[in-house]
Amino acid sequence: MEYQASVNQLTQPLVQYLLDHADKLRLAVTKLENGATIIDAGITVPGGLEAGRIITEICMGGLGTAAISQSSYTQNWPLTINVHTSNPVLSCLGSQYAGWSLSHGKYYALGSGPARALATKLREGLVEPVEELYKELDYRDSAAQTALVIENDAVPPLEIVEKVATACGVTADKLTIIVTPTSSLAGGVQVVGRVLEVALHKAHALHFPLENIIDGSGSAPICPPHPNFVKAMGRTNDAILFAGQVHLFVKGSDAEAEQLANTLPSSTSKDYGKPFAEIFKAYEYDFFKVDAMLFSPASVIVTAVDSGKSYRAGKLDNQLLDKSFGL
Amino acid sequence: MEYQASVNQLTQPLVQYLLDHADKLRLAVTKLENGATIIDAGITVPGGLEAGRIITEICMGGLGTAAISQSSYTQNWPLTINVHTSNPVLSCLGSQYAGWSLSHGKYYALGSGPARALATKLREGLVEPVEELYKELDYRDSAAQTALVIENDAVPPLEIVEKVATACGVTADKLTIIVTPTSSLAGGVQVVGRVLEVALHKAHALHFPLENIIDGSGSAPICPPHPNFVKAMGRTNDAILFAGQVHLFVKGSDAEAEQLANTLPSSTSKDYGKPFAEIFKAYEYDFFKVDAMLFSPASVIVTAVDSGKSYRAGKLDNQLLDKSFGL
Amino acid sequence: MEYQASVNQLTQPLVQYLLDHADKLRLAVTKLENGATIIDAGITVPGGLEAGRIITEICMGGLGTAAISQSSYTQNWPLTINVHTSNPVLSCLGSQYAGWSLSHGKYYALGSGPARALATKLREGLVEPVEELYKELDYRDSAAQTALVIENDAVPPLEIVEKVATACGVTADKLTIIVTPTSSLAGGVQVVGRVLEVALHKAHALHFPLENIIDGSGSAPICPPHPNFVKAMGRTNDAILFAGQVHLFVKGSDAEAEQLANTLPSSTSKDYGKPFAEIFKAYEYDFFKVDAMLFSPASVIVTAVDSGKSYRAGKLDNQLLDKSFGL
Repeated sequence: MEYQASVNQLTQPLVQYLLDHADKLRLAVTKLENGATIIDAGITVPGGLEAGRIITEICMGGLGTAAISQSSYTQNWPLTINVHTSNPVLSCLGSQYAGWSLSHGKYYALGSGPARALATKLREGLVEPVEELYKELDYRDSAAQTALVIENDAVPPLEIVEKVATACGVTADKLTIIVTPTSSLAGGVQVVGRVLEVALHKAHALHFPLENIIDGSGSAPICPPHPNFVKAMGRTNDAILFAGQVHLFVKGSDAEAEQLANTLPSSTSKDYGKPFAEIFKAYEYDFFKVDAMLFSPASVIVTAVDSGKSYRAGKLDNQLLDKSFGL
Repeated sequence: MEYQASVNQLTQPLVQYLLDHADKLRLAVTKLENGATIIDAGITVPGGLEAGRIITEICMGGLGTAAISQSSYTQNWPLTINVHTSNPVLSCLGSQYAGWSLSHGKYYALGSGPARALATKLREGLVEPVEELYKELDYRDSAAQTALVIENDAVPPLEIVEKVATACGVTADKLTIIVTPTSSLAGGVQVVGRVLEVALHKAHALHFPLENIIDGSGSAPICPPHPNFVKAMGRTNDAILFAGQVHLFVKGSDAEAEQLANTLPSSTSKDYGKPFAEIFKAYEYDFFKVDAMLFSPASVIVTAVDSGKSYRAGKLDNQLLDKSFGL
Repeated sequence: MEYQASVNQLTQPLVQYLLDHADKLRLAVTKLENGATIIDAGITVPGGLEAGRIITEICMGGLGTAAISQSSYTQNWPLTINVHTSNPVLSCLGSQYAGWSLSHGKYYALGSGPARALATKLREGLVEPVEELYKELDYRDSAAQTALVIENDAVPPLEIVEKVATACGVTADKLTIIVTPTSSLAGGVQVVGRVLEVALHKAHALHFPLENIIDGSGSAPICPPHPNFVKAMGRTNDAILFAGQVHLFVKGSDAEAEQLANTLPSSTSKDYGKPFAEIFKAYEYDFFKVDAMLFSPASVIVTAVDSGKSYRAGKLDNQLLDKSFGL
């Protein structure tokens, strides 16, 4: 991948900002016995919208802008996050995507953010990225310090922290783990802030050539948090599925751009049509039974920059959004 | 109050920005004979929207973000201010609320901003905060420099400046007073930027427990200024009363959240229904005769985070807004 | 002109940001043999929306804020740029306006940005600004480094670079030229970001006294780029002509403010009514045949601050916008 900005170096000032302003942002900062730093963004402390906004920018590898405002796009949910990035593929897939599965005993979490771009493992004697995706991205970062964002309502056990540090090639004291519960305000913001990332991820799953995606922007309503994990997660997804909107700019043929637009919206999925919590329950809480094509924005514009044509598909669904958000 | 960020320390960089960029922002900076700094944001100079935006962030104690954009929320008044804060109670009540009454001779003004959190007085031999509110907030700041925002069309007399410095425990040369006339652009912006603060203040007046308010966001149209003080002030109020919208996130029972939503909107006041300037005139310009419950946003969402339920009440009134803003 | 902020000094940090983050922003930075720096924002590299946003702020002389978001103002084109400035006349006319004609051989380009405020020439033995406009603005900047933004799909020949440096009184190594092709994303953003500037420029052409314009804000949809130069340029213009909106605050009489509002919108031009590319073609691609009064926002509010009255004229035209943007 050209334009190899370091997602780890670019995020360090943002991580430092969280540390320096923990009181202002109502975060709790602790050091583990191995020297790793934990930023609690909603377990024992309130955290909040602004913390979630900054964590979104950390997830985006320091390559994106996340802004909170009130808009009139939906009928009933003005609070909105807007994101755009100077490099959508590197920012969203090379950093923001929650692609690192981490488990130890009963603790299971997905890691996102810049640490993913450092993480390697030995396989058949070769050093390889933990995630296959990085081979396709042809991207490998190098940095002395790193940060990982975890969506969970508990601090990860020391074993996971050690595993992350080792994979990233840093000592634990150079690692910061930011923990955002799904049911917290910051957790909700940082998931809804993935509106552009889910579009990139689905484009990738649809085999659209990533190198042809040159720019993008997205927005979605910030969901009210819910104390129940499944409902909280459902709302963060539904914010994007029912009311996320994305504008992508792509190179290549009109046919490819049109096809991308037509297949990208969440409404193209066979599972579309009810709040995510209900779908999840119907599948007996087995994530892997949910149609992977569901995870995408409601409304999409794809502009083919080689012809200047724009294709749009999907639409906002206020009824389903209200049903999910609880009006 | 936990999370004791220093509203004075957090605002110093913003105050310094005004001083360093006075020419760019079209502000006039003067030193009084006692060494205090006066920033004129609209008396002898134009000031402007951007100065007003930064002054709003100073009022919010460096804990908030204020952004100006054009939105389509109202029919006719796209220019809008959006605010959110990482700590609404401390930011809005501990700093932004115009709670410090200052008078000398014929000069009368309300002071807002971080200096309020330093101000103490002797009462019955005890050092106490100037405003009772700080006892409830259980917040006391400590800082070597401070700033106070005054809404007035004249620089305060030296006696008031001395009184402020003394109450704040700083020498006058460590005090900056920012003066924003109500009829100036900056003055209008910084009052409309109180859309979230008036919601917090009314919640307090309604005896909603402040510690249960964990986050919030608001927006309101920026009013066109008016050269007449009463009409100018009327418009700044009406921007919030007729078109302000706020989303609060609260802990506690659903009943309390619902009650807060239902009682918060301006339309619940017996004085609601005509431009503020007319109400004020009808009460013979006696502020204390106006129903205190009037000062609140038009439209409110309150999310009870413990249950995930959201309650909404009130609505935008384009007709009254147009009547006030002069269409 | 009072409040003589240096547009060159204020933009240097922004220019340095482009240089320091060229990889992140997908820009190409090269040094010419004479030492001048060229920032390619879309010729051999993708550039992008965020690069365009920062270049817009450079064009505005460091006196303005440009923000990208998704709004619901138009029916079909959510991606939007919002601009406001602390000093519209100096920012938009003293820097952003593309007023410096530069040609050498077949290369022709208009220069915009802070270098214009340094540029002088000898005329009849006297040192005079290159552009007459600066006499009216009564503004002359002084700076050791400068930057010029050029809308073109090729790097200017060395002769033009030398000419710019000489006119600005700097050695070439103190000059940065930012090149934004009209058909690039960054190029599109930085032209649409002129929505407030075209209002200022037309106000000037209509002989409205510039010193009476005290503040302003504008927004317009960001157009999808088009590979054909004429269509690309057409779309950047149409974004403003069909969907740009501006709010100006002016001193002076109500009659002057009302007249300004009524004459400012694009729809007052005899050439209004079809996409700009068609108009341009009908005039055989001769820019000077196009009615100069066409270049202005679709919708305008002018507030007369001396009376508090607001005047509005013009309106959004979704059909024409869709026709231009290619729905």
